Amino acid sequence: MSVVRTNILEMPGYVPGEQPQGGTFIKINTNECPYPPSPRLERACFEALKKGLNRYPDPMGTQFRNEAAKLFDLPVDYFMVGNGSDDILTILTRTFVGEGEVLRLPYPSYILYKSLAQLQGAQSEEIHFDENWRLTPKFSEAAPNLKLAYLPNPNSPSGTVVSREEILAIAEALPCPLVIDEAYADFSDFNCVDLVLQNKNIIVTRTLSKSYGLAGLRFGFVVAHPDWIAQFIKVKDSYNCDALSIAVATEALKDREWFNSTIAKIKNTRARMDSELREIGFETTPSHANFIWCTHPEWDLKRIYLELKSQNIFVRYMVYDQWSLGNGAGLRISVGSDPEMDVVLERIREFF
Amino acid sequence: MSVVRTNILEMPGYVPGEQPQGGTFIKINTNECPYPPSPRLERACFEALKKGLNRYPDPMGTQFRNEAAKLFDLPVDYFMVGNGSDDILTILTRTFVGEGEVLRLPYPSYILYKSLAQLQGAQSEEIHFDENWRLTPKFSEAAPNLKLAYLPNPNSPSGTVVSREEILAIAEALPCPLVIDEAYADFSDFNCVDLVLQNKNIIVTRTLSKSYGLAGLRFGFVVAHPDWIAQFIKVKDSYNCDALSIAVATEALKDREWFNSTIAKIKNTRARMDSELREIGFETTPSHANFIWCTHPEWDLKRIYLELKSQNIFVRYMVYDQWSLGNGAGLRISVGSDPEMDVVLERIREFF
Repeated sequence: MSVVRTNILEMPGYVPGEQPQGGTFIKINTNECPYPPSPRLERACFEALKKGLNRYPDPMGTQFRNEAAKLFDLPVDYFMVGNGSDDILTILTRTFVGEGEVLRLPYPSYILYKSLAQLQGAQSEEIHFDENWRLTPKFSEAAPNLKLAYLPNPNSPSGTVVSREEILAIAEALPCPLVIDEAYADFSDFNCVDLVLQNKNIIVTRTLSKSYGLAGLRFGFVVAHPDWIAQFIKVKDSYNCDALSIAVATEALKDREWFNSTIAKIKNTRARMDSELREIGFETTPSHANFIWCTHPEWDLKRIYLELKSQNIFVRYMVYDQWSLGNGAGLRISVGSDPEMDVVLERIREFF
Repeated sequence: MSVVRTNILEMPGYVPGEQPQGGTFIKINTNECPYPPSPRLERACFEALKKGLNRYPDPMGTQFRNEAAKLFDLPVDYFMVGNGSDDILTILTRTFVGEGEVLRLPYPSYILYKSLAQLQGAQSEEIHFDENWRLTPKFSEAAPNLKLAYLPNPNSPSGTVVSREEILAIAEALPCPLVIDEAYADFSDFNCVDLVLQNKNIIVTRTLSKSYGLAGLRFGFVVAHPDWIAQFIKVKDSYNCDALSIAVATEALKDREWFNSTIAKIKNTRARMDSELREIGFETTPSHANFIWCTHPEWDLKRIYLELKSQNIFVRYMVYDQWSLGNGAGLRISVGSDPEMDVVLERIREFF
């Protein structure tokens, strides 16, 4: 095995949330949308299929790009499509961060960024949030070999946000590009997409997995200055998105009615979940995403997680070793449908 | 732009064949299948769609893996799925080749391998075929920092093959893994998939783009010892294949009738093309793939390419600067349908 690169051989590999593939369960561990996507997508998929899959797809996914440009009121060349936002994050990391260089991320946040650094043979530098999930000045400081900073906004697992003003200030201060990972921004009251015009070092990534109910489709995109996009195109696989997903994702963007009503439903359920979880006794942070981070200074959260799992209810139990708040452990519970939440809250109450 | 890695900034980027996206044309420049894929795929796609795209797909594409294991009579853990074989080649390169290290490939062959090395900040070492498209002993020699060797078999643009015996001997001699890129192997009389059992350093990659008529779907896979697969899993995106493509690709593998009749048709047309192209005066190499490499020591092949293009016929014009045979230039013409080849051969005859 010595022919494998040391950084790969020694890394544990990113472990995604459990994906049970059969049976009846309530799955609220990977922030999927509890509702099926827009019914209009079936027809779009069927038409793409009819065109014939024997030809290569459009390398740039032009129809999606055009629709995204309209939606965000930005020029088309600010957009590039990806096979899920994981593909986009991989492309950005490979563009900016070489062996031995440094990638910055906040802590606790999305663990994948660390794995992306490891895959490059790069270092990752975790800057701790303060106890109120605010960034400290350290996140904006220059550092030797610092090449890229990731900021998920809203953050996972906390669901908290950093303001637009603060993000602009961080981008001004940093010596490298700042990637705002907006996987959950559609559940928040604001986003930072237009900031790419104000500071070239701001790069925004998006996914259709959460707010469009398309985790199974693998589709994401990046919004960035065309100078960056030109470099990303070199790094991506030529045909990184397939013909079906381009057609389906484009139609998903067009159906604003499905989108708006789904977001409204999820926000309503989120508000109800938050108040009931607090009533039960959890400490929660006000969430701007489609999940709620639940902690407790004394409770054994792992036991709750395992008990729910034994009843086919999957929530995410997370432990952040270097994080003192709530003993570093918490349950990240995705916002499911109201009937799902009825069952889950009932089971949690029974536990006590 | 100085924050972009130098290797990325300075590389030209891989340029895939032209993909005209509308109008009427004969497209025989990227070795696509001229026939639509199995009609059974529509139902498989529809059923996957009905299951709901709001959930993440199976990270390992288990149903496809199981089917591939059956087809090739190997254990399931020898297989890993990819978003096209480009995704697979990217994963292999990232697993084995770090900055400043060396990736070996034959010349002339698939240009993408060079781009993959550049993306890693690695060196590529091109070993020339001899004038009969045979590998020289140099391809098997150890070299400082050599970490991976790519061998497309059949090769592009030549359509020629290296024998199984020779491949085993090369793998024995090399100090690093040898990737046999079998994108076109279904059009040949043999393949090397089972050799992964004989020598752990042999790794075989496959795509469904060519022989299954699924270029638009993006689906490929790798066959390798489970020790390697365990490393590749760390490097791939967690959900690199979507739910629709896993379902469609699995069904494609099952429909042996469509597959066998399509391969037979393409081989027939290939034989006819070869004899007619020779009759016209081209020099061709006996092809084991779904394209024919046409050269001529005196003709201006670029003029033929441009003339055909002006008539909406896209063939691939390729120039290999450091290759003396046929002035280094050639036309790589994909095997289209018989009616398409009627038109193309007629137009070429008119040219003279």
